[in-house]
Amino acid sequence: MSGRLFVVGLGPGGADARTPEAEAAVAASTDILGYHPYVARLSLLPHQTAHASDNREEIARASAALDLAASGRTVAMVSGGDPGVFAMAAAVCEAIEHGPETWRAVELTVVPGVTAMLAVAARAGAPLGADFCAISLSDNLKPWELVEKRLRLAAEAGFAMAFYNPISRARPWQLGRAFEVLRECLPGTAPVIFGRAAGRPDERMRVAALDEARAEDADMATCVIVGSAETRRVERAGLSPLVYSPRSVGGKR
Amino acid sequence: MSGRLFVVGLGPGGADARTPEAEAAVAASTDILGYHPYVARLSLLPHQTAHASDNREEIARASAALDLAASGRTVAMVSGGDPGVFAMAAAVCEAIEHGPETWRAVELTVVPGVTAMLAVAARAGAPLGADFCAISLSDNLKPWELVEKRLRLAAEAGFAMAFYNPISRARPWQLGRAFEVLRECLPGTAPVIFGRAAGRPDERMRVAALDEARAEDADMATCVIVGSAETRRVERAGLSPLVYSPRSVGGKR
Repeated sequence: MSGRLFVVGLGPGGADARTPEAEAAVAASTDILGYHPYVARLSLLPHQTAHASDNREEIARASAALDLAASGRTVAMVSGGDPGVFAMAAAVCEAIEHGPETWRAVELTVVPGVTAMLAVAARAGAPLGADFCAISLSDNLKPWELVEKRLRLAAEAGFAMAFYNPISRARPWQLGRAFEVLRECLPGTAPVIFGRAAGRPDERMRVAALDEARAEDADMATCVIVGSAETRRVERAGLSPLVYSPRSVGGKR
Repeated sequence: MSGRLFVVGLGPGGADARTPEAEAAVAASTDILGYHPYVARLSLLPHQTAHASDNREEIARASAALDLAASGRTVAMVSGGDPGVFAMAAAVCEAIEHGPETWRAVELTVVPGVTAMLAVAARAGAPLGADFCAISLSDNLKPWELVEKRLRLAAEAGFAMAFYNPISRARPWQLGRAFEVLRECLPGTAPVIFGRAAGRPDERMRVAALDEARAEDADMATCVIVGSAETRRVERAGLSPLVYSPRSVGGKR
């Protein structure tokens, strides 16, 4: 008997940024899997089993979830933000593609959530209000040369850019190098937003010009947004500046 | 006395995809502005005034909201999905930049939501699971040549792509032309997802290969996602195919 697997986005912060659909999926599940800080955000009931795990080993975690679901359990795999953006949904699909036939029969439901870049953009104004891209700066799963190529092409395209996984203890230099690459292709005044833990009590937002942006202002919990050449910074007395990307380009109205 | 302006994302569909934070912002407001189908999704109370408007005229709508807020009212400007992605947050910021000084003093809160591409991606699997971009195909606010340039650069970068505003009565040929451009730079087997009204009763999802993708399968309510050359399609007996973009590229694991 095949069960069910929900891959659930818990949103960027507390329960007020989580959809009722995500709450319902967790409530309906017998087994909850995920990276331990995400599992820790939930209040589970006595009949629910938590399987918290470390940050790496996504495929092992996805396989464990699919095994449980294939055995008839109702399983929730939880991610912060949205599970489809640099999170568990792709790992689950990859496990299904390469796994046993029984995994393909599992009823799979991906429940979307507010991903980090949207929460950070909202705090800053509307830096993603025109065409944009999202890039993981981790070179664990792709060559660093490809990251640099994508940064240059994104700048040439005029995209604002959101960086996920900007920095970690094991990847200390990548964000600084990304700023160096972008300084060659964007104006030094382009706004850079460091949005840490958006929506959580330890939230910290900072806006710098690209010329002055320092990698040390980011950590693992930070989403970095780099504006395009068109992105504007609007000062407000006594309030934080607004950063937005105008809807129109090239004089069109 | 200056009031307050919430720019609120209602999410992609019904109330179960809307965050408590968005509900609270609407509940706290005296005046609700927005494109009429979004305002119609809400159950307003007797003391709340709805100001529904037509699709165009974003700057006029933003100005009306800022005028009301500057006069002391608590105002919610509602968007479907996320207000920061091709929606009202950028129009409000633009109005503030070019408007009277009193508008800069308005307490502005952007409340993020689940944007359409995340809802559509969730239904399909994880097509946005690796680096991706979001492009509006409307040439109302930018020259069409710039759209084509961005499509070619995005394909060269290896981004999956989400298209907002793919087609309308006034813009009937742009999506078909976008597919033509992409057929020159991507494999014909690249999956294309047509996600219409995700999360609503009239939802319709369709997956085609780029070679067979037809613009007629989209309408104004559709978000189109085009996979990269790496994006996979996994068949499942009796279930819709899964479409996902692998987390690793270039043989890295």
